[in-house]
Amino acid sequence: MDKLNSVIGNIPEPDQRLFEKTQKRLDNLTKPVGSLGRLEELARLIVSMTGREKPSLPNKVIFTLAADHGVTEEGVSAYPKEVTPQMVYNFLRGGAGINVLAAHVGARVVVADVGVAQDLIPHPNLVIQKIGYGTRNMANGPAMTRNEAVAAVEAGVAIFETEYEKGVDIVGTGDMGIGNTTASSAITAVITGAAVKTVTGRGTGIDEGRLKNKVDIIEKALTVNKPAPADALEVLSKVGGFEIGGLAGVILAAAARKVPVMLDGFISGAAALIACGLAPKAKHYLIASHCSVERGHKILLDHLGLGPLLDLDLRLGEGTGAALGIGLAEAAVKILTQMATFEEAGVSGKS
Amino acid sequence: MDKLNSVIGNIPEPDQRLFEKTQKRLDNLTKPVGSLGRLEELARLIVSMTGREKPSLPNKVIFTLAADHGVTEEGVSAYPKEVTPQMVYNFLRGGAGINVLAAHVGARVVVADVGVAQDLIPHPNLVIQKIGYGTRNMANGPAMTRNEAVAAVEAGVAIFETEYEKGVDIVGTGDMGIGNTTASSAITAVITGAAVKTVTGRGTGIDEGRLKNKVDIIEKALTVNKPAPADALEVLSKVGGFEIGGLAGVILAAAARKVPVMLDGFISGAAALIACGLAPKAKHYLIASHCSVERGHKILLDHLGLGPLLDLDLRLGEGTGAALGIGLAEAAVKILTQMATFEEAGVSGKS
Repeated sequence: MDKLNSVIGNIPEPDQRLFEKTQKRLDNLTKPVGSLGRLEELARLIVSMTGREKPSLPNKVIFTLAADHGVTEEGVSAYPKEVTPQMVYNFLRGGAGINVLAAHVGARVVVADVGVAQDLIPHPNLVIQKIGYGTRNMANGPAMTRNEAVAAVEAGVAIFETEYEKGVDIVGTGDMGIGNTTASSAITAVITGAAVKTVTGRGTGIDEGRLKNKVDIIEKALTVNKPAPADALEVLSKVGGFEIGGLAGVILAAAARKVPVMLDGFISGAAALIACGLAPKAKHYLIASHCSVERGHKILLDHLGLGPLLDLDLRLGEGTGAALGIGLAEAAVKILTQMATFEEAGVSGKS
Repeated sequence: MDKLNSVIGNIPEPDQRLFEKTQKRLDNLTKPVGSLGRLEELARLIVSMTGREKPSLPNKVIFTLAADHGVTEEGVSAYPKEVTPQMVYNFLRGGAGINVLAAHVGARVVVADVGVAQDLIPHPNLVIQKIGYGTRNMANGPAMTRNEAVAAVEAGVAIFETEYEKGVDIVGTGDMGIGNTTASSAITAVITGAAVKTVTGRGTGIDEGRLKNKVDIIEKALTVNKPAPADALEVLSKVGGFEIGGLAGVILAAAARKVPVMLDGFISGAAALIACGLAPKAKHYLIASHCSVERGHKILLDHLGLGPLLDLDLRLGEGTGAALGIGLAEAAVKILTQMATFEEAGVSGKS
């Protein structure tokens, strides 16, 4: 808990003065004022987050954290839980969506086991920071102990810190865990106060009957556990997941280092709810890459006050939307740092 | 006109059989079916356009065509018309938004003068296919003759064909021309049948008074010229622009070569209306990169039946939105061609 408190205490306020200075530079570039819309907003945000007037993002890292969920025994998912470790191996072989999209934008992928339900074969690119062999079934009691919740967040901090030594200019969050939309819906319902059925979707693709069951199971979990919305660690321990806690840790550690965080979809958003519950200042370092098909995601983003960059009907997770968002972030930063000003280019201003 | 008719006659139907085959492959990749949403749609489209089961897009080319507009003498723009040649020089020096964003996605930029109002200093990277020294003022009569309209479209065909010899796998359209949102609004009003004021926006950033004047001028131009909506060459000649005609030519020539066309914003959309008026089959080769802030753009895209990929409040033109769209198109194609299947990766299917 000391480690976690220390990270939380180190999160600085973003630099608002640089925000205005950056606006002035953007307005002097050879384009009509504001004509690059949200790319300009992104550039301003990244400057104020990093504190660098001319940022660049050579080191792009997507953290894809994997864990299992005891609640899968309630039949909430379209896929068997064996898919979690199978997909981790797929990440390590480079065959998954996140591998392709990360490579496309020049990002590296850090794959970590923070709670897969079986021991994974060691691999030079697999980080192992296992908190447990999957969570317990939240329908019958807490998914994890409070100590495990702290350990999960601190594992995320440690994973970030190890990578930070190699250079990290922007973070993308990613997840793998059969059953984790169930945990994310539960977290979203508790923290935003929205009704369970409004924040529960089809995940990897369940039918109407299973969706109804999923809603029932989440409602049961909330009745059994009664998590206090204002206590983020309690929410995480009672209805969360190890990868969700780990991602909350990645977010907090990145914010403490003034590194922008590009959130992926619904599961990453649930991790952001936990992170901001632990440290409200973390919110200043978040960018929402996309709005997922998953029903609760928009409610979650509205609660965080984030507007997504993309709306491409994605619902894969792994960090795939974050990868695309990182591509846009780098484009935005290049606009700021590489375009000519009106004066440099000898172009006339407004008449 | 022979050249133009020959290009139009060469546009093939896209290959629908490949569409289904591609769907099957996408469904076998290690991700929930359909979970990459519009990226999957993009991959299917590019396969059926190119006729290649495993397309790749190493040669990405953005055609940024520049020309002036006589209607600027009516005070319809926020910038003086000198900005058109000044920005062409900025493109050639690499300081403009399109240079930065094209480089970001690995695209080359072809800059062409198809009707700038002054002679430009020759440059190895400047294509000169001048149809005239700007159009005439459409408020007083036709912007150009019908022969000039044909010549503008054929210039675009020639510019594409020259570049095609170097390799072109996907095209982005781009424009530069002070006054060209006025021409594009006029074209959109005529072809879609929408009221002028619903398709006329602030362009580079005019105030309320100038916007009212811009609407009045366009209405006057339509009253004076009475272009027949079904005759695309007449619409182009009476209220169009040389770069709009040129871009229509680029679109037609790309379609005839089965090369996908990523449309930029409102001006590119007006060019697409002209191209599809000349050859309805051209529509099958169009992808809309983004929805512009410019008011008429959504109406125009709806008329073409195109859904934009991005909505980032862009309104710069030059091909900037197309560059970002090309980045997504390449991501989509890589998903299709580089991801592992369930069988290859040993991942279990739905339970």
